[in-house]
Amino acid sequence: MRRLLMLNGPNLNRLGKREPSIYGAETLEDIVADLKELAHSYGFQLDAYQSNHEGDLIDQLQEADEKYQGIVFNPGAYTHTSIAIRDAISSISVPVVEVHISNVHQREEFRHTSMLAPVCRGQVVGLGTMGYRLAALAFLEETKKG
Amino acid sequence: MRRLLMLNGPNLNRLGKREPSIYGAETLEDIVADLKELAHSYGFQLDAYQSNHEGDLIDQLQEADEKYQGIVFNPGAYTHTSIAIRDAISSISVPVVEVHISNVHQREEFRHTSMLAPVCRGQVVGLGTMGYRLAALAFLEETKKG
Amino acid sequence: MRRLLMLNGPNLNRLGKREPSIYGAETLEDIVADLKELAHSYGFQLDAYQSNHEGDLIDQLQEADEKYQGIVFNPGAYTHTSIAIRDAISSISVPVVEVHISNVHQREEFRHTSMLAPVCRGQVVGLGTMGYRLAALAFLEETKKG
Amino acid sequence: MRRLLMLNGPNLNRLGKREPSIYGAETLEDIVADLKELAHSYGFQLDAYQSNHEGDLIDQLQEADEKYQGIVFNPGAYTHTSIAIRDAISSISVPVVEVHISNVHQREEFRHTSMLAPVCRGQVVGLGTMGYRLAALAFLEETKKG
Amino acid sequence: MRRLLMLNGPNLNRLGKREPSIYGAETLEDIVADLKELAHSYGFQLDAYQSNHEGDLIDQLQEADEKYQGIVFNPGAYTHTSIAIRDAISSISVPVVEVHISNVHQREEFRHTSMLAPVCRGQVVGLGTMGYRLAALAFLEETKKG
Amino acid sequence: MRRLLMLNGPNLNRLGKREPSIYGAETLEDIVADLKELAHSYGFQLDAYQSNHEGDLIDQLQEADEKYQGIVFNPGAYTHTSIAIRDAISSISVPVVEVHISNVHQREEFRHTSMLAPVCRGQVVGLGTMGYRLAALAFLEETKKG
Amino acid sequence: MRRLLMLNGPNLNRLGKREPSIYGAETLEDIVADLKELAHSYGFQLDAYQSNHEGDLIDQLQEADEKYQGIVFNPGAYTHTSIAIRDAISSISVPVVEVHISNVHQREEFRHTSMLAPVCRGQVVGLGTMGYRLAALAFLEETKKG
Amino acid sequence: MRRLLMLNGPNLNRLGKREPSIYGAETLEDIVADLKELAHSYGFQLDAYQSNHEGDLIDQLQEADEKYQGIVFNPGAYTHTSIAIRDAISSISVPVVEVHISNVHQREEFRHTSMLAPVCRGQVVGLGTMGYRLAALAFLEETKKG
Amino acid sequence: MRRLLMLNGPNLNRLGKREPSIYGAETLEDIVADLKELAHSYGFQLDAYQSNHEGDLIDQLQEADEKYQGIVFNPGAYTHTSIAIRDAISSISVPVVEVHISNVHQREEFRHTSMLAPVCRGQVVGLGTMGYRLAALAFLEETKKG
Amino acid sequence: MRRLLMLNGPNLNRLGKREPSIYGAETLEDIVADLKELAHSYGFQLDAYQSNHEGDLIDQLQEADEKYQGIVFNPGAYTHTSIAIRDAISSISVPVVEVHISNVHQREEFRHTSMLAPVCRGQVVGLGTMGYRLAALAFLEETKKG
Amino acid sequence: MRRLLMLNGPNLNRLGKREPSIYGAETLEDIVADLKELAHSYGFQLDAYQSNHEGDLIDQLQEADEKYQGIVFNPGAYTHTSIAIRDAISSISVPVVEVHISNVHQREEFRHTSMLAPVCRGQVVGLGTMGYRLAALAFLEETKKG
Amino acid sequence: MRRLLMLNGPNLNRLGKREPSIYGAETLEDIVADLKELAHSYGFQLDAYQSNHEGDLIDQLQEADEKYQGIVFNPGAYTHTSIAIRDAISSISVPVVEVHISNVHQREEFRHTSMLAPVCRGQVVGLGTMGYRLAALAFLEETKKG
Repeated sequence: MRRLLMLNGPNLNRLGKREPSIYGAETLEDIVADLKELAHSYGFQLDAYQSNHEGDLIDQLQEADEKYQGIVFNPGAYTHTSIAIRDAISSISVPVVEVHISNVHQREEFRHTSMLAPVCRGQVVGLGTMGYRLAALAFLEETKKG
Repeated sequence: MRRLLMLNGPNLNRLGKREPSIYGAETLEDIVADLKELAHSYGFQLDAYQSNHEGDLIDQLQEADEKYQGIVFNPGAYTHTSIAIRDAISSISVPVVEVHISNVHQREEFRHTSMLAPVCRGQVVGLGTMGYRLAALAFLEETKKG
Repeated sequence: MRRLLMLNGPNLNRLGKREPSIYGAETLEDIVADLKELAHSYGFQLDAYQSNHEGDLIDQLQEADEKYQGIVFNPGAYTHTSIAIRDAISSISVPVVEVHISNVHQREEFRHTSMLAPVCRGQVVGLGTMGYRLAALAFLEETKKG
Repeated sequence: MRRLLMLNGPNLNRLGKREPSIYGAETLEDIVADLKELAHSYGFQLDAYQSNHEGDLIDQLQEADEKYQGIVFNPGAYTHTSIAIRDAISSISVPVVEVHISNVHQREEFRHTSMLAPVCRGQVVGLGTMGYRLAALAFLEETKKG
Repeated sequence: MRRLLMLNGPNLNRLGKREPSIYGAETLEDIVADLKELAHSYGFQLDAYQSNHEGDLIDQLQEADEKYQGIVFNPGAYTHTSIAIRDAISSISVPVVEVHISNVHQREEFRHTSMLAPVCRGQVVGLGTMGYRLAALAFLEETKKG
Repeated sequence: MRRLLMLNGPNLNRLGKREPSIYGAETLEDIVADLKELAHSYGFQLDAYQSNHEGDLIDQLQEADEKYQGIVFNPGAYTHTSIAIRDAISSISVPVVEVHISNVHQREEFRHTSMLAPVCRGQVVGLGTMGYRLAALAFLEETKKG
Repeated sequence: MRRLLMLNGPNLNRLGKREPSIYGAETLEDIVADLKELAHSYGFQLDAYQSNHEGDLIDQLQEADEKYQGIVFNPGAYTHTSIAIRDAISSISVPVVEVHISNVHQREEFRHTSMLAPVCRGQVVGLGTMGYRLAALAFLEETKKG
Repeated sequence: MRRLLMLNGPNLNRLGKREPSIYGAETLEDIVADLKELAHSYGFQLDAYQSNHEGDLIDQLQEADEKYQGIVFNPGAYTHTSIAIRDAISSISVPVVEVHISNVHQREEFRHTSMLAPVCRGQVVGLGTMGYRLAALAFLEETKKG
Repeated sequence: MRRLLMLNGPNLNRLGKREPSIYGAETLEDIVADLKELAHSYGFQLDAYQSNHEGDLIDQLQEADEKYQGIVFNPGAYTHTSIAIRDAISSISVPVVEVHISNVHQREEFRHTSMLAPVCRGQVVGLGTMGYRLAALAFLEETKKG
Repeated sequence: MRRLLMLNGPNLNRLGKREPSIYGAETLEDIVADLKELAHSYGFQLDAYQSNHEGDLIDQLQEADEKYQGIVFNPGAYTHTSIAIRDAISSISVPVVEVHISNVHQREEFRHTSMLAPVCRGQVVGLGTMGYRLAALAFLEETKKG
Repeated sequence: MRRLLMLNGPNLNRLGKREPSIYGAETLEDIVADLKELAHSYGFQLDAYQSNHEGDLIDQLQEADEKYQGIVFNPGAYTHTSIAIRDAISSISVPVVEVHISNVHQREEFRHTSMLAPVCRGQVVGLGTMGYRLAALAFLEETKKG
Repeated sequence: MRRLLMLNGPNLNRLGKREPSIYGAETLEDIVADLKELAHSYGFQLDAYQSNHEGDLIDQLQEADEKYQGIVFNPGAYTHTSIAIRDAISSISVPVVEVHISNVHQREEFRHTSMLAPVCRGQVVGLGTMGYRLAALAFLEETKKG
């Protein structure tokens, strides 16, 4: 069976509890459930993992290699600083789409730069939690074509 | 009837003819046709406009005000330099989603900055011509919910 | 008869309709009418022109040469980026006074720099639509002296 | 009776004696006399004060609070460096219009930035000693309207 | 019972063993004991936690939410680089005071910037291990007032 | 008798009158009275001085040499620009603790840098007017130890 | 018949009328006539086009594709700012040689950078209107060789 | 018995599996075996440790203190960002030699700076996996001398 | 009688008392006496003035105009920040030679730039208190020639 | 007889032997021969000199003064760093045209800046070895006119 | 017979005489002798050359082409500024290993950047004069393998 | 006998022939003669050397060690770029005073920085050829004192 991985970085376990004016009221659990259903409708299984630890995210990316068709990844704050996660993405052959719930370009200067974007396939930014759906569709629809 | 506008900036009339290794082989006409069909399936009409002239794009944005539910906009090279287009987007109440076919973050330094992103609702970057579909879906799916 | 030109750049046709908290409720038509009257009271004719097109503004500046005593110019967003308009101002002998309705120094960083200021006679910034009157007076009063 | 304050910073006591190609031949006394007359014609009293001392200018601004309808202020070289004067302007409720006789944007790089502009109502730059008149008119004309 | 949390970042477990000319001879255990006593004298319980792992500090901050009156936090080297810890502090409602034992402004350039200061209530810098006491007092004295 | 000096820079005479949302409602006189009492309880005399003039603050620092055990100094806006005050602090042997009432790191970029911090013993930032008390305690408690 | 295109950007229609100390006394018409003759002597036809509009220049470049052996292009002020023209040059297979009449490196800082040079075959700078001839010769002589 | 520690940072567990054009085909296990043998021939024991977690590397460095004659350390991507690892190296007395397999100076700009180099004894860069041998020899040969 | 002015800025009244390793053990009074003697031997009178106040130094410079053959000026810390003193020097016709006792280029970065050097005749730097003598000789010897 | 000097800087003696994909297959000797012939056809003598030594190039430029009508100069890598060669060019009255065989603007960032361009008459860049011919023609054709 | 070249740049002839705290007490002659012996033990001849002249080093690099298996190069201060030496290294096929005796990353900022590293095979930094041995071993050991 | 060395860098052999408005009409030979006489009057011998070659200046500095009481050095354009000369000055024990005839701070930006100043004893700038005399006096007068 074909599989997608949904990976979330630091503080995203707090979604729905934290700064709702920026991130909305949905919890991470809600979003995961919604995405599993969407994947399922395309005949995919979706696994989800969240961690506040940079090292854990690197471990997960390495283990994902050759097991998934694609990774929907919201790296949270590590987006802007982690060369180590960048190297992990480069070292695997599974394509990654970067997702940001808020429009990072409307926020602090240091959130305008992504260390990861150059090694991801693409980005979906600022479209709220629907961004996860669109990123997943980028993989799911593509498969339908092939 | 509800309507979407698809707006394309400089050199995008050359899609499919120019640098296929970066932009793919589909022409702009192909993409427009595909998007019209998608919009239609949601009960929307989609209009499309392309120009190489910064002033034309500003004129179009101003005229679009109060006529559309959303604008899918690939501003091409004006993304990185046009404060005038930014002001036009700010001055209208129709939401705009910025689309880039290629992953601009893998290209020259000057393509990493968007003057428009902070006044758009969001961005879809690097997902090829499917990016137009996903941006349109951000509007179409939202409507379905409401 | 002596003449003044009032030139307005991109998005200024939207005055009174757009972001009233920044730009006020007067329309461009109101301001033009008011300025024509002021000019008239000094025995001047005032012509007005607005465009969203950088090229049009350059065309107008070139054609204005030797026809006007002065130009009151609100270049909008082109203020911060247009070397081409700067060259057009340099190439004519009519003096130009740059006007900004809002206090650009209270807004985004990129609005703090003017490519045009060094080739204009002066600037009136942040004094609302009264700024146009003061800029016109700079020409009108000067003539009275002479 | 309504009152305006005209405040001048360092070296402006040397007007008419110093670098006439940049600043013209009028002395500060001439300009003050001219402005008093203008203010008088609108039913205003105008007070004038000059100092080379940053601290004196701060003292004056603090004392001006609640006594004046507006302040016409040429801060000279302190424009570009004084956060302390900026804080003084922020701390009072009288509006301030910044005046520069020469077009500072045609001079050295370090004269292109104003620490004060963001807390002033506006600026009049490069219009010679007529700039003081125009800045005063911004207050005087406004009153006429009200 | 009211509670304070004292949180210490990387390498602070080495206090008293490492570079005594910069950090003094007291061990972290000594300081914790001293602070517990101080807190106790105000009727507070004080918990202490140290980790070299960025992710652990984020986990602790998240868990601290709604359990403590305040957090005294010496983030060590993560001060200068961690946006993820910054987001964790933003996401909780417990106020945080940042402490640095040494005067970071006398050291390398990269220690002069704090990613965390803008989301903390305040900072105590360079006052040696007494800085922890002063930061705790900021919470303890405040409570006495209320 | 042992003595502390409390020194305040430009605009701090306006405390309680100016921008209360940033600086609170207490006046400088209130704070001085409070600090004198605190010092007295430790057997210290506390003198206080405020000036808007950079030169006065330098004069005071020079005269303070060898007369005080410590200086609690809020340099206001001169914090960010005055090398001359920095040199005065370097030239005396009395230790100085820098105090800022507001969290300067949450305000404009130019308030994030202190020219004085590297020559002060330490800083207390963002803890409101309690910051003066904590800075004084840094000296008072230290004396108790010795 | 083989053909060359000579393209001129903003304000170059003013050659001979504007700032003769920088650009010389020849008009654009004179130069075009001279170049046509030169091209003719090599058996080439030369077409010439000038516009103040960035969009027009892009339109022209796109239409030139596959019609010309080479383009002699003086982009005027758009040299320093136009990524859109750069993309148009990249998208065609006709080689372009950039010409500047004045030595741009002796003028303002912002004229030292060319957005277009990296996608042109080469540059001829500062050799007056003879620069057009030399750029044309680069194409004409090359053909003679082949 | 004398001992060396060989420490490897994030993604180096993927050596031989990842981007062979940059890092070669040898696995980390191969290199460790080779280095153990080399060390043995000098009468040294060599221990090896790899982790993707910044905190683990700090823990290891702290524990290595006073147990090893030297550390051969390839910090991977943390080289460029980790002040916390820098502080850990500073806090121990065992000398560290930094190793990079690829020539980081031929890669992205952000790989040209090392946060760690100033606190290491030296660096061996770009000499492939032989770099580990050379770094080890720096310690082993030195011992032979003494 | 011909006259020289010796002007000293902030903290130079502390010479001989402050940081002798940087500035030596001579007091300002010693240096003034020595310079008066030197000037006298050339038939000049030398006046000396010191102040910690930027405004006082500006006042003195303005008053010196047309009274002195030259000014030997050690502006202390105002060297690096004062545009107002720069303007005062520009506004007078007496030539100024800038003196620094220590080699400012061996000290902090911010001491490497002089706002005043471009409007002074020249500089003598790092030659200890003999620098004052050499600067005076630049005026005294010149006069002998004439 | 009228004369031209052709000057070549470091590594240009390796032309035709080194990196032919960048510099082509012609040797420096070939180019010199070709240029001598071209010069001869206009009644000019052409001398050629190459050195890897910055000092030699300065010596040659100094000696060329008043002996040549013009200098065709490819300064190689010294283009980007040598202020000493710049001063030598400034100090002579013979005009210099700078030539670069490759399009330096397509190469590393540090090759985009020329220290020499502002003191040369002009530049010919990226037109291969034909660039030398075009630069020579700039002098030869000019003479024909006069 | 196989050969290595050892090349040393400016001031390295002073080794052992100059700043021994930075560079140690060994002279260049000692090091050369030691390296010749090492090379000899691998069946290699080693030649050594030192010059203070940038041009000489370029001449030597060019002449070394096709004569040596490798070059051990300590370019001294030219490391940080010489694009001409960089081009010479690029133009030859002999691989070069850059050596620095001191840890340049612990010294002035301008010593942290190497113009040469990107065109060298690798670097050995900060390992004292043993660095020359290790660099030579990189070539010698490699040969043994082949 | 005691000796001084006067060293001159590139293009200073052209003094009196080159740009007299900047450097005056005296030749280097005139200045040397004048300085020899001055030195002689203090019982010193003065040697003089000029070269356009960076390497020659380094050779001379190295050879000067232990032979001279001081060096008066005008390094010309190498002032701003040569780390190699800086290292040569650091490596010798003879003190060096840097001289510039023109006021480099009134010229191009790149002439405002000296790579050499931090390792020289001091600088004399902008005092014309008298600067050489004053620099020599710094050594000669010092000797008289001792």
